[in-house]
Amino acid sequence: MKHNFYEANQAMLMDFYEMTMSNGYFQHGMKDQIVYFDMFYRTNPDDGGLAIFAGLEQLINYIVDIEFDERDIEYLRSVGIDDEEFLDYIRNFKFTGDVWAVEEGTPVFPREPLVVVKAPVIEAQLIETMLLLTVNHQTLIASKANRMVRAAQGIPIVEFGARRAQGKDAATKGARASYIGGCIGTSNMLASQRYGIPVYGTMAHSWIQLFDDEYEAFRLYAEVYPATGSFLVDTYNTLKSGIPNAIKVFNEVILPKGHKPMSIRLDSGDLAYLSKEARKMLDEAGFDYVKIMASNSIKESTIQQLRDQGAVIDIFGVGENLITSSSDAVLGGVYKLVAAEEDGEIIPKIKVSENVEKITVPGFKKLYRFYDKASGKALADLLTLHDEVIDESKPYELFDPVFTWKRTIVENFEAKELLVPVIVSGERVYEEKSLDEIQQYRESEERRIWDGVKRIVNPHRYFVDLSQKLWDMQDQLLKKYSHRGR
Amino acid sequence: MKHNFYEANQAMLMDFYEMTMSNGYFQHGMKDQIVYFDMFYRTNPDDGGLAIFAGLEQLINYIVDIEFDERDIEYLRSVGIDDEEFLDYIRNFKFTGDVWAVEEGTPVFPREPLVVVKAPVIEAQLIETMLLLTVNHQTLIASKANRMVRAAQGIPIVEFGARRAQGKDAATKGARASYIGGCIGTSNMLASQRYGIPVYGTMAHSWIQLFDDEYEAFRLYAEVYPATGSFLVDTYNTLKSGIPNAIKVFNEVILPKGHKPMSIRLDSGDLAYLSKEARKMLDEAGFDYVKIMASNSIKESTIQQLRDQGAVIDIFGVGENLITSSSDAVLGGVYKLVAAEEDGEIIPKIKVSENVEKITVPGFKKLYRFYDKASGKALADLLTLHDEVIDESKPYELFDPVFTWKRTIVENFEAKELLVPVIVSGERVYEEKSLDEIQQYRESEERRIWDGVKRIVNPHRYFVDLSQKLWDMQDQLLKKYSHRGR
Repeated sequence: MKHNFYEANQAMLMDFYEMTMSNGYFQHGMKDQIVYFDMFYRTNPDDGGLAIFAGLEQLINYIVDIEFDERDIEYLRSVGIDDEEFLDYIRNFKFTGDVWAVEEGTPVFPREPLVVVKAPVIEAQLIETMLLLTVNHQTLIASKANRMVRAAQGIPIVEFGARRAQGKDAATKGARASYIGGCIGTSNMLASQRYGIPVYGTMAHSWIQLFDDEYEAFRLYAEVYPATGSFLVDTYNTLKSGIPNAIKVFNEVILPKGHKPMSIRLDSGDLAYLSKEARKMLDEAGFDYVKIMASNSIKESTIQQLRDQGAVIDIFGVGENLITSSSDAVLGGVYKLVAAEEDGEIIPKIKVSENVEKITVPGFKKLYRFYDKASGKALADLLTLHDEVIDESKPYELFDPVFTWKRTIVENFEAKELLVPVIVSGERVYEEKSLDEIQQYRESEERRIWDGVKRIVNPHRYFVDLSQKLWDMQDQLLKKYSHRGR
Repeated sequence: MKHNFYEANQAMLMDFYEMTMSNGYFQHGMKDQIVYFDMFYRTNPDDGGLAIFAGLEQLINYIVDIEFDERDIEYLRSVGIDDEEFLDYIRNFKFTGDVWAVEEGTPVFPREPLVVVKAPVIEAQLIETMLLLTVNHQTLIASKANRMVRAAQGIPIVEFGARRAQGKDAATKGARASYIGGCIGTSNMLASQRYGIPVYGTMAHSWIQLFDDEYEAFRLYAEVYPATGSFLVDTYNTLKSGIPNAIKVFNEVILPKGHKPMSIRLDSGDLAYLSKEARKMLDEAGFDYVKIMASNSIKESTIQQLRDQGAVIDIFGVGENLITSSSDAVLGGVYKLVAAEEDGEIIPKIKVSENVEKITVPGFKKLYRFYDKASGKALADLLTLHDEVIDESKPYELFDPVFTWKRTIVENFEAKELLVPVIVSGERVYEEKSLDEIQQYRESEERRIWDGVKRIVNPHRYFVDLSQKLWDMQDQLLKKYSHRGR
């Protein structure tokens, strides 16, 4: 018997309160109540200036596919959700609402809606956990990959982290997100097979240990992979044994077969020193085209410091620090009720809080990105009410939503709507993009962000503003609730 | 069409080098070469004194089930692995080797083998990534949960992190590992359904926001869940609005229905202050039995500080910091070749390294835990060669493998073998344990570890020693390779 019985149905991956609340709405006759939810996050990972949105493809598939089976119904009964009418509703559940989202690969910023859901309240509520999990995870890893790629300033990075990933899904979706963020490939075959990501591999220490001798191990590998082998040179001693043996095999096996050796890999020791020495030895032996790959707990700061010390590295293999975003392992995206319909009217809802940064921006909204036509660069993002239209032919006044006296008038701009419809009445309307398209879109949109915002340390803050109408509406709601105490 | 097409077959979740090396072994006629691999880790997460081993059940299922399909064969061809004999081998692949492992829930320590694999080299190599990923992830989360549970000193903890998990698998297996580590339940319904973990849920802010009034929201919830509802009291103002409204609903709805209210939840603000005030208000209103649950980015240090400040919390809901082990998001378990058979003889293999801590312990080994019969406490763990037998009736001399003059003679001890056979000749021989059995085993084994080792900060180091025979063998191998340079 195969043990992946449950793999196919993951509908029950949700927090129990979503089901208890849904049953509550159902019992009170509210199942057709239309509501609006925003998904957004509050701070960029790693104190960065931006994040890279990812996970939309999996999110759409989840929402249009979600359905429950009889085992799920039995389980619900076993935990006290036993109203037969509600269980019938769950048995026939299908998402029928509308979803808007930012496109994958888009640079995004705190407090702006990345996904907007309009649906009957039970439908909107039941998708909460998977929506958050999918976007939080992939956006976190895409953003981390992007930081590393920016730190590497043109030196390519391959994702090598599967063995340290937090589960199977993290390994494979993490490789996908890393590619969106800018990695050139992965070592994970499943991710390569599933998403078309270029696959990379070298050899493990075990290959070398299994033979009596490092030279013999390299020779036998070279016989099978003369053109594509990457030789791991640190098993015994990088400079005294590994590189000399590799060069010997290049001369004695690879060149005679009419191939050119491809690369060596450094996996321990002082990578700055070893890479410079390795480069010299390879060059002197006539292998100036052989690439040097470096791995071993690489992170953004390692990459920067290696560059400062003149390391000669052609490609980085990055594992655990990328696949888990270990320096900041959580993107705290949230999913908040922002409006509800009453008699066909959209009534904004606000979540006030004793923590000011937890106050939500109410209402069904649009998200615009303003680009300066002269430079092509993004100036600011603007949240507006859903029925506002930006007239690009006229100057537009932007202002800081906290320090409202900070104002600027922009002219000669282009205002692009970032939220696009992806599901309408429960049906997918968004065309699937290839991962290469997404990566290219990320690259072109990233180029439109000012360098200061993309700085690794202490980046410039990008502006996310509210329209005057939206600001006024939020202000009124805050005043309404402020009597309940500071 | 459903999009989880690929979910069922995850055989390709491995690093590409495992396949290229396997093809290399195959081409050199080495497919029947028997090898031994150890899985171990080098440092405890969070600078702790121990880790809790988890993930074995999923690991066994993976190993006995692994097989490749025609899509996988096509993929391999597309990336240059195109030798038809090798592809036939992969098409008919089945794991035929032996696996020993520590039982789930066992407190474990750095540098000791947690999983030992004896198999033909290709079989041993191809399972590397999933073996590491499975054990690294679940052991990390079980260890984190266990730290939090120890910090909470008897106050129960529920796992609430699905929405911040790194992917679906991390959410569900993470809930499983958390339960092994000592949590009393999870909010994740899928984990509850799949593994029989008690499920917990309260209500979200969205429930309260959707109604005009907090009292009305509580009242409607109480009508559906009079006996099990947990009332979230921080939407507007915890002390001025939330708790008074909850008390009103307890009196007006829950008591008249003949039920007793269960709990309230605090999710923001100063939890120490609010919990003390909430307790007073509830007690004064006659609800001294109503429990106070606290959530909001709880970690070990928060728990300790809340206790120091006299917080009155009956149950913690812990999210992101548990499900991602955010303070230390990687358990760096490795999988190293330790021996190979030559003419029926087991030849030990060592991995030397310029980093001393990366040197492996060679040979096919056993792992013993020595317990003091008088106190019942664990004294030390001991690695021996596979054919050594510990005679409990005689004194045994343990010594530090680095400072070898540090020696101690133990008497009146029990020596328990920790590695048990789980797969023999490719077939499962280990009986599946229920999660409750595993949790209880963890609890009883944890009690046998001295408190100093279990301390949250600056714990005492537990001893993992080598037998004299094993130490001598490692020493000889190190001398053999030491001429290759410091």
